Amino acid sequence: MAIDRVLTGIPGFDEIVNGGIPKRNVVLLSGGPGTGKSIFGYQYLYNGLIRNQPGVLVALEEHPVQIRLSMSQFGWDVSSYEEKGKFALVDAFTAGIGEAAKREKYVVKAPDDFQMLIDVLRTAVKDIGAERVVVDSVTTLYITKPTLARSMILQLKKVLSGLGCTSILVSQVSVTERGFGGPGVEHAADGIIRLDLDEINGELKRSIIVWKMRGTSHSMKRHSFQITDKGLIKPKEIVMVSRRISENE
Amino acid sequence: MAIDRVLTGIPGFDEIVNGGIPKRNVVLLSGGPGTGKSIFGYQYLYNGLIRNQPGVLVALEEHPVQIRLSMSQFGWDVSSYEEKGKFALVDAFTAGIGEAAKREKYVVKAPDDFQMLIDVLRTAVKDIGAERVVVDSVTTLYITKPTLARSMILQLKKVLSGLGCTSILVSQVSVTERGFGGPGVEHAADGIIRLDLDEINGELKRSIIVWKMRGTSHSMKRHSFQITDKGLIKPKEIVMVSRRISENE
Amino acid sequence: MAIDRVLTGIPGFDEIVNGGIPKRNVVLLSGGPGTGKSIFGYQYLYNGLIRNQPGVLVALEEHPVQIRLSMSQFGWDVSSYEEKGKFALVDAFTAGIGEAAKREKYVVKAPDDFQMLIDVLRTAVKDIGAERVVVDSVTTLYITKPTLARSMILQLKKVLSGLGCTSILVSQVSVTERGFGGPGVEHAADGIIRLDLDEINGELKRSIIVWKMRGTSHSMKRHSFQITDKGLIKPKEIVMVSRRISENE
Amino acid sequence: MAIDRVLTGIPGFDEIVNGGIPKRNVVLLSGGPGTGKSIFGYQYLYNGLIRNQPGVLVALEEHPVQIRLSMSQFGWDVSSYEEKGKFALVDAFTAGIGEAAKREKYVVKAPDDFQMLIDVLRTAVKDIGAERVVVDSVTTLYITKPTLARSMILQLKKVLSGLGCTSILVSQVSVTERGFGGPGVEHAADGIIRLDLDEINGELKRSIIVWKMRGTSHSMKRHSFQITDKGLIKPKEIVMVSRRISENE
Amino acid sequence: MAIDRVLTGIPGFDEIVNGGIPKRNVVLLSGGPGTGKSIFGYQYLYNGLIRNQPGVLVALEEHPVQIRLSMSQFGWDVSSYEEKGKFALVDAFTAGIGEAAKREKYVVKAPDDFQMLIDVLRTAVKDIGAERVVVDSVTTLYITKPTLARSMILQLKKVLSGLGCTSILVSQVSVTERGFGGPGVEHAADGIIRLDLDEINGELKRSIIVWKMRGTSHSMKRHSFQITDKGLIKPKEIVMVSRRISENE
Amino acid sequence: MAIDRVLTGIPGFDEIVNGGIPKRNVVLLSGGPGTGKSIFGYQYLYNGLIRNQPGVLVALEEHPVQIRLSMSQFGWDVSSYEEKGKFALVDAFTAGIGEAAKREKYVVKAPDDFQMLIDVLRTAVKDIGAERVVVDSVTTLYITKPTLARSMILQLKKVLSGLGCTSILVSQVSVTERGFGGPGVEHAADGIIRLDLDEINGELKRSIIVWKMRGTSHSMKRHSFQITDKGLIKPKEIVMVSRRISENE
Repeated sequence: MAIDRVLTGIPGFDEIVNGGIPKRNVVLLSGGPGTGKSIFGYQYLYNGLIRNQPGVLVALEEHPVQIRLSMSQFGWDVSSYEEKGKFALVDAFTAGIGEAAKREKYVVKAPDDFQMLIDVLRTAVKDIGAERVVVDSVTTLYITKPTLARSMILQLKKVLSGLGCTSILVSQVSVTERGFGGPGVEHAADGIIRLDLDEINGELKRSIIVWKMRGTSHSMKRHSFQITDKGLIKPKEIVMVSRRISENE
Repeated sequence: MAIDRVLTGIPGFDEIVNGGIPKRNVVLLSGGPGTGKSIFGYQYLYNGLIRNQPGVLVALEEHPVQIRLSMSQFGWDVSSYEEKGKFALVDAFTAGIGEAAKREKYVVKAPDDFQMLIDVLRTAVKDIGAERVVVDSVTTLYITKPTLARSMILQLKKVLSGLGCTSILVSQVSVTERGFGGPGVEHAADGIIRLDLDEINGELKRSIIVWKMRGTSHSMKRHSFQITDKGLIKPKEIVMVSRRISENE
Repeated sequence: MAIDRVLTGIPGFDEIVNGGIPKRNVVLLSGGPGTGKSIFGYQYLYNGLIRNQPGVLVALEEHPVQIRLSMSQFGWDVSSYEEKGKFALVDAFTAGIGEAAKREKYVVKAPDDFQMLIDVLRTAVKDIGAERVVVDSVTTLYITKPTLARSMILQLKKVLSGLGCTSILVSQVSVTERGFGGPGVEHAADGIIRLDLDEINGELKRSIIVWKMRGTSHSMKRHSFQITDKGLIKPKEIVMVSRRISENE
Repeated sequence: MAIDRVLTGIPGFDEIVNGGIPKRNVVLLSGGPGTGKSIFGYQYLYNGLIRNQPGVLVALEEHPVQIRLSMSQFGWDVSSYEEKGKFALVDAFTAGIGEAAKREKYVVKAPDDFQMLIDVLRTAVKDIGAERVVVDSVTTLYITKPTLARSMILQLKKVLSGLGCTSILVSQVSVTERGFGGPGVEHAADGIIRLDLDEINGELKRSIIVWKMRGTSHSMKRHSFQITDKGLIKPKEIVMVSRRISENE
Repeated sequence: MAIDRVLTGIPGFDEIVNGGIPKRNVVLLSGGPGTGKSIFGYQYLYNGLIRNQPGVLVALEEHPVQIRLSMSQFGWDVSSYEEKGKFALVDAFTAGIGEAAKREKYVVKAPDDFQMLIDVLRTAVKDIGAERVVVDSVTTLYITKPTLARSMILQLKKVLSGLGCTSILVSQVSVTERGFGGPGVEHAADGIIRLDLDEINGELKRSIIVWKMRGTSHSMKRHSFQITDKGLIKPKEIVMVSRRISENE
Repeated sequence: MAIDRVLTGIPGFDEIVNGGIPKRNVVLLSGGPGTGKSIFGYQYLYNGLIRNQPGVLVALEEHPVQIRLSMSQFGWDVSSYEEKGKFALVDAFTAGIGEAAKREKYVVKAPDDFQMLIDVLRTAVKDIGAERVVVDSVTTLYITKPTLARSMILQLKKVLSGLGCTSILVSQVSVTERGFGGPGVEHAADGIIRLDLDEINGELKRSIIVWKMRGTSHSMKRHSFQITDKGLIKPKEIVMVSRRISENE
């Protein structure tokens, strides 16, 4: 029985996971600052929209207005999809404060109230029949209460997977951190994608590696990639970042 | 006097422990995210079922429905065994909430109540005459109360060993952690199996090593293995992951 | 659509960010003691003044009088611009105590009161129509309350970006610290510039690297630079500081 | 004046300490999981019994029944010695709960009550005239109250040394820990024996080193050893585990 | 405009800072035990006295009597200067207890009361018209209250710089610590001088490096030095202590 | 003016400190378990007795009876000196409990009461006119209250130096610890002697290094030494333990 997969549409990435992310998987997208996590998330959602797969973006880090602007800089204009009810932005950033926020449809009035966030998210997903969800970032949810991290991830997973969505949870780690966001989070996710930005001989290099992906085999290699004005591209060559986990830790 | 052993049936693994895990041993199966701990546990249980050795799986991380689905993807269909009373899934995940959970027979209504979990587990083991038990994962039990870890492991050991079961306790560690789950846990277990996923020259490599196993000698070597759609296979070649413990810590 | 950029005017730096910092970006300028962070900030502001772009400096570390003196030692005399209402110094250092402080126009009477600081800053920015803002340093704001770091950065960002300013937030790290000021801070900023001072073979070397910059591509290389009596200059050659992040951490 | 010594009878070990452990010494036996600490302790006691030196084992980690079984697997049958009043097992594990526990003679009803443990131990030592004592493990005594570690070791030392016993205190350390159980413990003991299990080029190697031994000179070398169905044997060749303490820490 | 400088008079050191420490700078003098920090401070003060620049020493670590004795061992007799009102020793050590203390003129009765220390220090500086001040050590001030470190340094700086003094603040770090006393302290100082004592091939080597010095350029190299019965001398050759910060951390 | 010195009489050591420890110095003797700290202390005291320099040993780690026994094993019989009032043992170990303790003259009834210890110590020093004092160990005094370490050291120094004694304070560090007992302690002492026991190529090596010694120059080299039945001897060859502090930390 072939499993259902969701194409990210990110040039070169779907091959890494042998044809797309298995449907209903909740995938942790982990990386330090400047590694391209948000861009990956935007690109994943936009590539869904043009394939007629509605999507929801939960915004915890940026103002919704700024996010639409950032997406448009890559040529990913979501406003027409929002109008058609194919895309929704859940505003868990502004708390509904400010003029711009008043124009948002899905607002989490108390961004610290995780149950309210879950409720608004569920409504948005149902309203537009979302097949893809990105939460940017889950780290924000538990940054001041780490002991709740695992149960939050599990709840998100229960809701999102239960509604049939294939989801990306952005996990922010410090530039010096090797992990993916802590054991409770790492083990709860169905998949882990790691984006890296490493200084090698005085030059920053980008690479991506899939650490786990439930329901499919995947490339076991580290792949280089670039960020251009088209988003992430060409993660196809292998880059050696010198035995990172096994020897240096 | 030859000791009784339990065959895992995992291709290549029983040779590593000289013919199987000594009966009644409580073995810690430790590894980071994506190392194949759950698959090892499923395979161990299913290989018992086809040898007419009933088994119990305590589910703390995943929904029972998802677990049965995951097992079936490897060709391990447990539903017929459940019907015959040869396999039981102890649901310590849903708290009995949701439609699907209502169809579960062994439910821990309060997953945080360790005594209740012990009680339901004991009942399940007795009902089906379980010879094999897998707890996935014990880490979940004490993730927010580490000082209780050792006493929980000791209690599980007392119950499971006392009922004649040979058990696997899945221990989740962070991707960056060298240990097996902390001293209280490591010393309380009868055996320790470590699954590793290391990046070597830009490529992820899987390996397994048995750190201790009470009641038998065992291979002192690190073995490579793969995960295919048949589960874990062929842990037979030695892989050198460059003096991990002795030099890098 | 070409993006608006703000020229730092620092010899060699604008090339590193492909023509200047994207307008409205809030950039973290991170480095250890003695790396030239304050000088970078002064130079950025003064170069705005001579381009007719008003600027505000929030002083949390030094007495305003000392700051003007330090700037003048590089030939950057801001007093005429202050008189013309093109430059403002927000005094969040003296708490209004002392004779000299009485001559300051923008004083944060309670430097520990973040909301008061935001209010005074907003007033100063509006009064002079500031296009550039430097906060030296944000670390001072949350040094004794690290859990508030991220929300402070986010508030500053909301205010400064909302008022159309392009801002530099100085982030102090210990001489032994590899990070940029913690995950909450690193991820909230639109850009990260790192200044380094490393001892190599018994000699201190200065280098600069742009770790991320929203809205533009940027050099991925580490560049050497010098501090002279003209300020920071010539960050053009690449210096290899031996695979800093990727191998040593 | 020649000092009195106690032969461990462990093949090769007595030579390492120049003819046995000095009488009345309280020796810390430290090692990670799977290093053979308990086996060393059993072997030390049994070798005393066959030399007509009564012994006491304080069981804090395992059920007394399991311990007797484990010992018998090495051919060390203690039941006849128990009957003759030459060997005693102090049960500080079961708290007297369970059928099997009812057959134990020396039971610490409240294993958390250190004074009670001391009292029962003193009684057992006096009853059988013990010359050798093993406590497996002392770590259990203070795992949740580390600040008491030193005073507990000192009390045990006072009692055991005062009664003329030569004692082994098993100290469990994590697999990743280089120390012997903390400074308070390390300095209070009369001797320190370290058992190691290191992965070298993909293979686990056992070694033993005596770090200190009051009252005698001892080998300053690291010795390899093996565990067979006869217990620990042949610690005679030197194994180089690559300058462990001096360079890697 | 040439800046005013204060000559340390330490053979070789003034060249390192291009002609002396810029006037009014507050310089952190950081180093482990045995690196010569106090001697540097004494020498700096005595060399001021013989140049007719009055000085104050704040004694937090040693009895004033012992300090005068230690200074005299290097031929630096301060008693005549004390009599002439050119040198003052602020006793923040004895709390005024003891016969000898009764002869001290400037006593901080409650050494834990930082405001009292500031008051006594200000009085002493004004009384003798001090141009140089040494505080030995500032670490003592905040060793048990690290969160106050930065504000104490800032207050000292405000007072000392305001009174026109050029000051050395001795900062004690542990022998194993790479930093200069923590980020709050490092960034608040106008300059940082680091004294090192490193074991290289079984021999201790002394070296000095200036990490930052506001208001002047300075040598970017590490210089070796010696301590003789004349104090610190000859910091002129470069010593390579192997890329300390950049590679080993 | 030549300084007064106290000969340790330890073969080879007095040369290391250029003729003995300067009188009234309070010297920290730091090392891990098994490095010979106590033996050094005993030897220092006994060598004083045979030179007619009375001494006091403060016993915090061992029973006075055991200490006299240990000393006698090296041929250092102190009982005759005790009878003549030339040697005193301050018992801060037994709290006066036990038969043997009743025979002790100087007993600290409440070993946790630091002021009482100071009082008894002062009495003992005065009674016998002690010129040498050893405290074994000071670590015991503050092991559970580290913030008091520095003030305790300072008090001891004030008393002992004030009474004209030249003192050794034994400082216990963990086997894995590079420091000398923490910054507060390291900087308060007049001298630091470090005893090391390092495993090099599978063999334990003893070495000694003087890190600082107020009032005298000293060897800057690491010296090997041995412990025989005569105590510490022959610390004269240099041993290279591979750039311990400078590169490995």
